[in-house]
Amino acid sequence: MAHTIKEKQQLLARLRRIRGQIEAIEHALEEERGCEVIMQQIASVRGAIAGFMAEVVEDHVRTHLVDTTSFPKALNQEATEQLIAVIRTYLK
Amino acid sequence: MAHTIKEKQQLLARLRRIRGQIEAIEHALEEERGCEVIMQQIASVRGAIAGFMAEVVEDHVRTHLVDTTSFPKALNQEATEQLIAVIRTYLK
Amino acid sequence: MAHTIKEKQQLLARLRRIRGQIEAIEHALEEERGCEVIMQQIASVRGAIAGFMAEVVEDHVRTHLVDTTSFPKALNQEATEQLIAVIRTYLK
Amino acid sequence: MAHTIKEKQQLLARLRRIRGQIEAIEHALEEERGCEVIMQQIASVRGAIAGFMAEVVEDHVRTHLVDTTSFPKALNQEATEQLIAVIRTYLK
Repeated sequence: MAHTIKEKQQLLARLRRIRGQIEAIEHALEEERGCEVIMQQIASVRGAIAGFMAEVVEDHVRTHLVDTTSFPKALNQEATEQLIAVIRTYLK
Repeated sequence: MAHTIKEKQQLLARLRRIRGQIEAIEHALEEERGCEVIMQQIASVRGAIAGFMAEVVEDHVRTHLVDTTSFPKALNQEATEQLIAVIRTYLK
Repeated sequence: MAHTIKEKQQLLARLRRIRGQIEAIEHALEEERGCEVIMQQIASVRGAIAGFMAEVVEDHVRTHLVDTTSFPKALNQEATEQLIAVIRTYLK
Repeated sequence: MAHTIKEKQQLLARLRRIRGQIEAIEHALEEERGCEVIMQQIASVRGAIAGFMAEVVEDHVRTHLVDTTSFPKALNQEATEQLIAVIRTYLK
């Protein structure tokens, strides 16, 4: 996982933001904020996690399904883009 | 799509069952059945459609991502199974 | 369910459109259209079913949680709208 | 939100477990664990957040839709249980 240093840093930054969102829900709950605030916060963090999952799955598809060093032309680009579009639609 | 006659027949059979489930909801609505019956029927048809989608996506991954005639060994089996397991989890 | 004739007709019209979408997928499959076409069609029908479910659940909340003839002022409007907003977000 | 001290403590405990799951994904990413491990961890945290959301929505339905001090008998118990069952099905 995390195939370049830059990718890894970006994924870690996303996770830290998600952790911050969880902490914000903890604070809202401790301060007895209204249900509607907390329900919106949970919907946001759910969206952020879905986006993170889509990123990881996309990375998995592009990097691991085919060993591109041994088979540089084997992965069908069009079919790959179609798959990733479907994954993004379903994971949002 | 539908790479063998058998696969195509199976997918068509699943779609016909889904169509039957939609018709059953129409009848329940016409007969003014209770909300709870209709909500359960919708939850069932949603599950059936998710299962159908998972089947089509799995088929797409196995058949189209790599031209297995030209590159018979290029698709990493383990990574493919991991991807399909994730898709099944998210589409159910 | 379907508390007025107009509501019932609208829900039945939605279901007939959903049934038409299922039939279109059957035709696409019979004609061996590409996976990407079929995956997009399934994503559409899934969205339509989610929207139908949201409609039925909203109707259930507004009509059945409180007997508004006996308790005309009991249902908290603001809390009801918040709940329906959450349901719509999650069912889309 | 969090209508009794006990409920609030239970919700906070759930959130802390979710935060711990996010931290575990950060560690897995830093240690360059395999995609499949990380995808399973994300699927778990997504399930935990969905369960938390279901809990908050259920609490909202039971506590806020009707002011039970003024209208102690207004909330239809059967319709409420049906709604909560649907929410639990969709949010898992």
